[in-house]
Amino acid sequence: MRGGVLRNIRLTLEYEGTAYGGWQVQENAPTVQSEVERALAVMLKAPVRVTGSGRTDAGVHALGQAANFKTEARVPLSGFLHGLNALLPRDISVRRADEVPLDFDSRRSAREKTYQYFLHVGDTPSALARRTSWRPPGRPDVLEMERAAGFLVGIHDFSAFRSAGCDATHAVRAVRQVWVKPRGDYVELGVTGNAFLRHMVRIVVGTLVEVGLGRRRPGSICELLEARDRRLAGPTAPPQGLFLTEVKYDVEPLETCP
Amino acid sequence: MRGGVLRNIRLTLEYEGTAYGGWQVQENAPTVQSEVERALAVMLKAPVRVTGSGRTDAGVHALGQAANFKTEARVPLSGFLHGLNALLPRDISVRRADEVPLDFDSRRSAREKTYQYFLHVGDTPSALARRTSWRPPGRPDVLEMERAAGFLVGIHDFSAFRSAGCDATHAVRAVRQVWVKPRGDYVELGVTGNAFLRHMVRIVVGTLVEVGLGRRRPGSICELLEARDRRLAGPTAPPQGLFLTEVKYDVEPLETCP
Repeated sequence: MRGGVLRNIRLTLEYEGTAYGGWQVQENAPTVQSEVERALAVMLKAPVRVTGSGRTDAGVHALGQAANFKTEARVPLSGFLHGLNALLPRDISVRRADEVPLDFDSRRSAREKTYQYFLHVGDTPSALARRTSWRPPGRPDVLEMERAAGFLVGIHDFSAFRSAGCDATHAVRAVRQVWVKPRGDYVELGVTGNAFLRHMVRIVVGTLVEVGLGRRRPGSICELLEARDRRLAGPTAPPQGLFLTEVKYDVEPLETCP
Repeated sequence: MRGGVLRNIRLTLEYEGTAYGGWQVQENAPTVQSEVERALAVMLKAPVRVTGSGRTDAGVHALGQAANFKTEARVPLSGFLHGLNALLPRDISVRRADEVPLDFDSRRSAREKTYQYFLHVGDTPSALARRTSWRPPGRPDVLEMERAAGFLVGIHDFSAFRSAGCDATHAVRAVRQVWVKPRGDYVELGVTGNAFLRHMVRIVVGTLVEVGLGRRRPGSICELLEARDRRLAGPTAPPQGLFLTEVKYDVEPLETCP
């Protein structure tokens, strides 16, 4: 499988995070990265290191996580796509494979990410939605949440919305768009930004839900951004409602599949 | 909990069928009925027999299965709703509880049922859809499927669309509506009828998919209905794409919750 020219392959991955300790390889739990690396090692008969666009927490899902690896193997893109899907557990699937320039790096080249979070606000719990949504303790007022969400847009110091374990050097991030949409028994929250701090989206959701439940004012978001104190924000919403929807790059792929 | 007047309670149940051997109580596997009866027995401190609108097969899901039981317990409807949801496993949920007249029977009183089936026809498999859809071996032509589906509407002998194990006394059923709708990476099939034979919807789906893949003509549905021979129809589509969506009754509930 060796002896070809070195290529940089980007995978677009979908996964249900329920069974995993998150994206990143760790000692104590199976992770999505370790499953992908295991499947690639079987396919290529050699260890392969995969770089993800960023971590997702234990229990968080992805519709469009990006990850890349370099290889000299003469496997066509469709071979990676179908071969990996045959080798991966069924809760992880490869939706696309692209060849990208050698200097592409899933994490460093990422220009923008989109996350979505689903609240289930029906009167009674939904068996089918239990792994992919969170039922907040009450039916939140969507207009109030939307009003609060607007204050998050822009370049801010998001220190109030980062977990204690966050190791980013600074907390300034650019949020381009935030939305709160009623969808039948669900409320969809979405956020697009250049990068995110650890637990940032989940703390945003936990805080917006408090606004929706009347426990804090929409304007309190501004005070939180100014105070930069995690203790003043709402609780971290549980992971199972969160999806990494898309990672955007400016890079033009050399080849795509499908 | 006893000593009240006898009431007939109808539950509307949602479940993910993945972990169950179907609706009906059986020896070898946990079933949805046995879980509901177990939860009711804990709540009412006495054995309770629950009557479902009909069986669903192992692995089949429900958004609106109906089941009723009689009790003298003085539990309000909201008590059944919240109590059962607290006691049931999270892949079964009670979405409504209604008090209905004493002569109501979930199976015999049912006027019409609706099933939906989801095909995943994206180029690559979807990790998040794996438990709730089937990926047919190719991308079916939706217009051809729709043309074929039209022939199923009406009162017909559906012997070609019943499994060997079906114990219904005759195979004449009235199908009021069939639809085939493209929905992004999915094709939604739906069917509404007065009653259904064992595996009927799944054999219909398996046969319509063969039409969609060009393996049989839309008009062959008419020949199947005339021939009444199961061996001439398509394969039984797998259970995980199927949902019992709704069971309709003419009965006016005495009280509803929520």
